[in-house]
Amino acid sequence: MYEVDLNSDIGESFGNYKVGLDEEVIKYVTSANIACGWHAGDPLVMEKTVQMASEKGVGIGAHPGYLDLMGFGRRNIVVTPEEVKAYIKYQLGALMAFAISKGEKIQHVKPHGAMYNMAAKDKKLSMAIAEAIYEVDEEIILMGLANSEIIKAGKTIGLKVCNEVFADRAYNPDGTLVSRKLKGAVIHDADLAISRVIRMVKEGKVTAINGEDIEIEAQSICVHGDNPEAVEFVKKIRLKLEEEGVKVTAISNFIK
Amino acid sequence: MYEVDLNSDIGESFGNYKVGLDEEVIKYVTSANIACGWHAGDPLVMEKTVQMASEKGVGIGAHPGYLDLMGFGRRNIVVTPEEVKAYIKYQLGALMAFAISKGEKIQHVKPHGAMYNMAAKDKKLSMAIAEAIYEVDEEIILMGLANSEIIKAGKTIGLKVCNEVFADRAYNPDGTLVSRKLKGAVIHDADLAISRVIRMVKEGKVTAINGEDIEIEAQSICVHGDNPEAVEFVKKIRLKLEEEGVKVTAISNFIK
Amino acid sequence: MYEVDLNSDIGESFGNYKVGLDEEVIKYVTSANIACGWHAGDPLVMEKTVQMASEKGVGIGAHPGYLDLMGFGRRNIVVTPEEVKAYIKYQLGALMAFAISKGEKIQHVKPHGAMYNMAAKDKKLSMAIAEAIYEVDEEIILMGLANSEIIKAGKTIGLKVCNEVFADRAYNPDGTLVSRKLKGAVIHDADLAISRVIRMVKEGKVTAINGEDIEIEAQSICVHGDNPEAVEFVKKIRLKLEEEGVKVTAISNFIK
Amino acid sequence: MYEVDLNSDIGESFGNYKVGLDEEVIKYVTSANIACGWHAGDPLVMEKTVQMASEKGVGIGAHPGYLDLMGFGRRNIVVTPEEVKAYIKYQLGALMAFAISKGEKIQHVKPHGAMYNMAAKDKKLSMAIAEAIYEVDEEIILMGLANSEIIKAGKTIGLKVCNEVFADRAYNPDGTLVSRKLKGAVIHDADLAISRVIRMVKEGKVTAINGEDIEIEAQSICVHGDNPEAVEFVKKIRLKLEEEGVKVTAISNFIK
Repeated sequence: MYEVDLNSDIGESFGNYKVGLDEEVIKYVTSANIACGWHAGDPLVMEKTVQMASEKGVGIGAHPGYLDLMGFGRRNIVVTPEEVKAYIKYQLGALMAFAISKGEKIQHVKPHGAMYNMAAKDKKLSMAIAEAIYEVDEEIILMGLANSEIIKAGKTIGLKVCNEVFADRAYNPDGTLVSRKLKGAVIHDADLAISRVIRMVKEGKVTAINGEDIEIEAQSICVHGDNPEAVEFVKKIRLKLEEEGVKVTAISNFIK
Repeated sequence: MYEVDLNSDIGESFGNYKVGLDEEVIKYVTSANIACGWHAGDPLVMEKTVQMASEKGVGIGAHPGYLDLMGFGRRNIVVTPEEVKAYIKYQLGALMAFAISKGEKIQHVKPHGAMYNMAAKDKKLSMAIAEAIYEVDEEIILMGLANSEIIKAGKTIGLKVCNEVFADRAYNPDGTLVSRKLKGAVIHDADLAISRVIRMVKEGKVTAINGEDIEIEAQSICVHGDNPEAVEFVKKIRLKLEEEGVKVTAISNFIK
Repeated sequence: MYEVDLNSDIGESFGNYKVGLDEEVIKYVTSANIACGWHAGDPLVMEKTVQMASEKGVGIGAHPGYLDLMGFGRRNIVVTPEEVKAYIKYQLGALMAFAISKGEKIQHVKPHGAMYNMAAKDKKLSMAIAEAIYEVDEEIILMGLANSEIIKAGKTIGLKVCNEVFADRAYNPDGTLVSRKLKGAVIHDADLAISRVIRMVKEGKVTAINGEDIEIEAQSICVHGDNPEAVEFVKKIRLKLEEEGVKVTAISNFIK
Repeated sequence: MYEVDLNSDIGESFGNYKVGLDEEVIKYVTSANIACGWHAGDPLVMEKTVQMASEKGVGIGAHPGYLDLMGFGRRNIVVTPEEVKAYIKYQLGALMAFAISKGEKIQHVKPHGAMYNMAAKDKKLSMAIAEAIYEVDEEIILMGLANSEIIKAGKTIGLKVCNEVFADRAYNPDGTLVSRKLKGAVIHDADLAISRVIRMVKEGKVTAINGEDIEIEAQSICVHGDNPEAVEFVKKIRLKLEEEGVKVTAISNFIK
């Protein structure tokens, strides 16, 4: 049987600032990446978001990022492996306290934004991230870009890993994402996006931007809950996956 | 046998800013209150400080404060109980991650500065702090001003509590500290300070500023490591306590 | 001829977080209170907001607040007069740079949230705020709660002052606002709110919550642009004022 | 007659954290680069530091950096030219308010740390920085690494520029600084450092790390006040320069 997880970033509100249709998207995803107060989120938002994920039975993930609220964690910051290791522990621990207080465990860690992208290509950063998680709780799953350095680092350290794919993004022949600055990077046709994802899940393949078929492991699909259209897409992708006989379930149910 | 703990705030450096003779004072105290990145401290400092406390066998405590680095957490901020509860969980969790990764547990939580002082007098704030800790780990000891609201709240919630006393501060007849704005608030004579502390530990009494003897429970004594004189005082107070037959040991060894 | 200003807080977005219908409300107000990056706003938002105010011919005001983005500057923080004085200079200067680079001047300063409310009752804070402004530019108008300590401080220091009134808030017999925690504090009937404001402008009077008429000077009316209803109210109040023969114009046009 | 400026970063304390022997080094330098609250400094520190510079007759410079107190502004952050332009205006304006309130003007702007280094090599960043300053006050001098992109950008925009040299750093044959990661990057021999500087000032030449003589314009020399040895070096370099007939004076006195 095919199994896949749907994950979404939630809990990105901060103080007076509200973003994301968290209450909507949480109904359709199986894992939640919860901001930890550095690039987004605050303690009250974390408390409420963990509570919501717990009630919905959604896998609780820490979504650590750089300390850059002004840039929403999307700007590359040159940090040392020692720094990123300590930053991961700090944010993971902070979220863990909320999870524990709801009787929950942290299912996974998925780095955010610039940290995600930098780590995907940087072995040292990825190793530091994986070590941080392992030292805190070796049962936590490390989620990152399929086949990237972060996945390799997780395996090297001894963590369970989750290869994440993107429904709406084009891939290079080497399995990396086509830069958003390039034409064709984003797939706007929802049906095409969905059929690509189904093929990734069932065949382990996707057509790269040069037309070539490449291998890709799809254990979790990244979806968004920023706006009503995004939520509609999540609903639809979940429905289609289930119609195709793919079980949509949290990664902790099939990554052992 | 008499037993008492010596506690000091450490890990208050931040980034490029170094403060405190942590490596010195850690040799003489039995419990460390480690800043959690909000009023002081940063993840690298926390990692290093937890490591140091672990090596020295000193009880590891979280020292959460208000998000006010510019004011070092010493300025009163009017927050709701829900806010403070979430802030405690966040900071406690963050430190917990570092402790876990060194194979250690959090021994205690002692709120910092303005949060400490506000909670001492405010039942709702104190209850929120105690609840936060209890929900994260009911084995953690709550340290606060002897006989204050925070101690009562800890007991009400079901936490173990630690009554903290100050060697160098004058007490009001009701057991509260004499405000630093008033004359005589600080006891500058080291020998007098030490003899007062020894009496608190052995007789459970201290002479209030009006000359009256009051009852006080002294389970931990707050000392400082800001400067060489402060460290000398810590050395001396420890020596004197031991000469007087008082066992100086971490609170987890005698608060059960 | 009667003259009055309509002011609104704008430029409260921060990084990825967008709030306020700034482009809408700016069409109807005559003065803008622009957040300066401490409780809301960031440099890019400030640049854009000053540009917009400049294009619309709206009076540019600095809206300094406490360094509390998480609390949106609405939480009381106990600061010294020296601190608040430096905080005002810092934020005023920051906004001034954007104004200068558009060929504009700062028309006024209106403290935000907790700083506004604390200053209204605290002579020392108010004096510090007024001094800060005066030392930077003695031509700037200080806007604050009508008849409050901030208005008195502005006059004492030698600044021009602007008495601000609230259309949708009830007043105590002493001219202070009825606390939002009390019943009747907010006037939900738009027509009533408008007629009260018109009376304040034309007669200098308002009916306090106890039914008594009190004197009030209304040089600027605080309005909001948070949501479409708020903008509709601003449109309506402006129309009604003009129908009643009141000229709606920036304070710099009539406060000399 | 030869003229040169000695500049030092000051005002880098923050809240409870004190760094730098500002009161000492200010006696020997002729220009001060004052931190603006983003990578270091706070409003109270800025107020006090501007006051001190004013009393000593030292040229007041803004020292803007990235919003990275934890990294002291020394970590590269990938920002857009629009962002850096707004960040410069914000910080320059903030310092300007303190200068104005002491009856002073901003003499120069020198970007800090990572922003300084990134701009030295990046034309777009440098142009954005130069534009920001020009739009706020076209009389301000832009100080940066001699012969780097920042100097070119300043000239292109129409600003006066100041070529800064380092006494204690080795130069590459192309005029850039030898990376601190490489051997020989830092010149530890004070006398050698001073003789190199004197040659830069008088002959406009320095021996690069490969032994080749290169041309360099030295209008200001960067010195430090972090520790007593650094201050001793500043004293010594000033004395030697004067003995050599070089007038040590603020850049505003000779860059017109």
